[in-house]
Amino acid sequence: MNKIDNPKPEIWSEILKRPTKTIDDIEITVKEIFKEVQKKGDEAIAKYTSIFDGISLENYEVSEEEIQEAIGLISSELKEAIQLAKSNIYKFHSAQKTERISIETTEGVRCWQEKRPIQKIGLYIPGGTAPLFSTVLMLAVPAEIAGCKEIVLCSPPDKTGKINPAILYAAHLCGVTKIVKVGGIQAIAGMTFGTPSIPKVYKIFGPGNQFVTVAKQLATQFGVAIDMPAGPSELLIVADDTAVPSFVASDLLSQAEHGTDSQVILVSTSKKLIDAVEKEIQIQIEELPRKVIAKKAIENSKLIWVENDKIALDLINDYGPEHFIICSEYDDFYCNGIVNAGSVFIGNYTPESAGDYASGTNHTLPTNGYAKNYSGVNLDSFMKSMTFQKITEKGIQNIGKAIEIMAEAEGLQAHKNAVTLRLKNIGERE
Amino acid sequence: MNKIDNPKPEIWSEILKRPTKTIDDIEITVKEIFKEVQKKGDEAIAKYTSIFDGISLENYEVSEEEIQEAIGLISSELKEAIQLAKSNIYKFHSAQKTERISIETTEGVRCWQEKRPIQKIGLYIPGGTAPLFSTVLMLAVPAEIAGCKEIVLCSPPDKTGKINPAILYAAHLCGVTKIVKVGGIQAIAGMTFGTPSIPKVYKIFGPGNQFVTVAKQLATQFGVAIDMPAGPSELLIVADDTAVPSFVASDLLSQAEHGTDSQVILVSTSKKLIDAVEKEIQIQIEELPRKVIAKKAIENSKLIWVENDKIALDLINDYGPEHFIICSEYDDFYCNGIVNAGSVFIGNYTPESAGDYASGTNHTLPTNGYAKNYSGVNLDSFMKSMTFQKITEKGIQNIGKAIEIMAEAEGLQAHKNAVTLRLKNIGERE
Repeated sequence: MNKIDNPKPEIWSEILKRPTKTIDDIEITVKEIFKEVQKKGDEAIAKYTSIFDGISLENYEVSEEEIQEAIGLISSELKEAIQLAKSNIYKFHSAQKTERISIETTEGVRCWQEKRPIQKIGLYIPGGTAPLFSTVLMLAVPAEIAGCKEIVLCSPPDKTGKINPAILYAAHLCGVTKIVKVGGIQAIAGMTFGTPSIPKVYKIFGPGNQFVTVAKQLATQFGVAIDMPAGPSELLIVADDTAVPSFVASDLLSQAEHGTDSQVILVSTSKKLIDAVEKEIQIQIEELPRKVIAKKAIENSKLIWVENDKIALDLINDYGPEHFIICSEYDDFYCNGIVNAGSVFIGNYTPESAGDYASGTNHTLPTNGYAKNYSGVNLDSFMKSMTFQKITEKGIQNIGKAIEIMAEAEGLQAHKNAVTLRLKNIGERE
Repeated sequence: MNKIDNPKPEIWSEILKRPTKTIDDIEITVKEIFKEVQKKGDEAIAKYTSIFDGISLENYEVSEEEIQEAIGLISSELKEAIQLAKSNIYKFHSAQKTERISIETTEGVRCWQEKRPIQKIGLYIPGGTAPLFSTVLMLAVPAEIAGCKEIVLCSPPDKTGKINPAILYAAHLCGVTKIVKVGGIQAIAGMTFGTPSIPKVYKIFGPGNQFVTVAKQLATQFGVAIDMPAGPSELLIVADDTAVPSFVASDLLSQAEHGTDSQVILVSTSKKLIDAVEKEIQIQIEELPRKVIAKKAIENSKLIWVENDKIALDLINDYGPEHFIICSEYDDFYCNGIVNAGSVFIGNYTPESAGDYASGTNHTLPTNGYAKNYSGVNLDSFMKSMTFQKITEKGIQNIGKAIEIMAEAEGLQAHKNAVTLRLKNIGERE
């Protein structure tokens, strides 16, 4: 752990530097696989599934029997937990629905905005030891509320050709329309170009390793949208003497166990709190099954003491954390002042885990400073905002002259003509 | 003009194919200039301004005197037109403001969503013969309503070192905080990395030629967001015998004058209407100052007859036009059924020009089929959606067990611990 006292603003960006990755090597591999999937379709999917997942499959689509089998394998305890989480996620994202916004900007000029669902979306769920069924909930629930017609889920098969039953259960529960046992770059390429086994989609959501991240970036060059650029997960906690050191330590550790490159930061106006949290981390870390990972991340963590809350807030906005926990006497000050953060957790009984799983907020959030310019996933991520307008004869008479003058000033005579013709037509009839 | 009768769905994508561009050559140039601006700052800005704009400037920032001079140069007629347009754009985008969305998903678990402005944004406005001051309105007005702190505008200087006065007037009127006389790739690179003359921004908006488009794409690799990927402008009109052929022709021509690669499409269930529009185009096109451009675009235009409105709607959704004009007896059918379009114009007195300039809707819209997965620019484009949560002791008791079970099933013990510790703490006190 690195304790830093009262750092000057000039060095904030240095001490809060995120790990940078070189993607050039990966990019060549990703481009090659994309080219092959584009050209050869399922033949390329089979080849790379064999290479990366070590298995040959006859059918990539998960069958109804496989889903039923998975449902049977999940304990009723886990089912109930998933259902509770789903219910909260559903409530919070349903509340985000918006009505048509309609106004008459000038008499006879009616403009409105409506949101319509993106028709075809793809969800990528990584495989491996930690089956991220919670991410299935976070992406499929709002997609279903939005009204997306096709919700395709891709996830890599294990060595026996299966997908983790909790992932299948969650997908089944949340209205996924097709589950495909394909992972990695080949899955993203498949959803980009479409193959007989994998439908082409318009937007791809979900986490993944560096290969998947680069593949999603490349997909955008072929007309597919993505949820957001990705980076290692991060947590910043601001805490003072009203915080409980063991709670703060447990939250920092829950971030640290994600990966060795996780960013773990504590900012405080209290040196006493910093010391107490440091001690608690040492105790709690020994009990963790993933302590090797957590120790590496904690080694790079920063415990930053600052003089006052004003400085703390500036530093936090400068960093733009993905997760931001506030355990402070002045929580209102931080809530009102924070402009760059993905999701904010307030008070001693609001651990990040709550938002990761079951409170109802989304856990797909901007990392890597993207909280400065990107939203976390929300209902609107699955929709497009469209505008409509209907102008009456009176309306075009009211704004027609302005359009003619502006179009002429921009040198666009045909734009002007479209109005002139209509005004003349009305004039002749009056 | 290409008349096509009753095309089968299998060939829709072929006949509605958009012009594709190769960007590989451009990419090398763009990458080089980015590297140089990143390393040398204003020195590189000066070099490329000299090369591309043929001028050396001492100061890149537009001074207060230059703005005052520009205001003096604009006719009062044009000022009034711009003010009317601004007023309508302001009304429509203000109406898009949203309140905090707050719900208790479970007793003691309060979640809310709030939007906060992106703090620093950049607007790119191309130079050249057609000064796009209307685009200044479309971008700066919602940015100001959103509350963006820094609104930087970059536009190339002409041979005398000036920016068109209408652009300066519009920028001044709409709260732009800094106007910089730098254009092209070097402007985008400057806003990406920041130089002494050009502030670094978090998101870049605005149109541009192929070089600017590729530069904006590259900017996203350095953490900057962009409004949307760009392509040539396009208009699709669906019209039947209730339409006025001369109006339809004038709208198609207003699209055609944009550029030789503009996409101009008419879909109709009436052969009579198609023939009448064709004749009207021949007449009107001869009067246009930009007729050389318009003729090229019209050569590639498509006049498509289809059997019925159902087929027409499917074809239109398959294409996903940027601008969609409906002049049909069945306008409700099209309004309700359209899912892929940027902006929709309804009725005989609603020309695309209205939305381009003064009705109040935004004219920065998804082209190239991106209407399937991207919104046009709207108030939310200048904001980020953030979530907040506050959980009480009762709240964590209500959802804590579900979190523990899910975290354990995902193999994330520290996530579980963060809840267990809190539940234990409450238990010990009860």
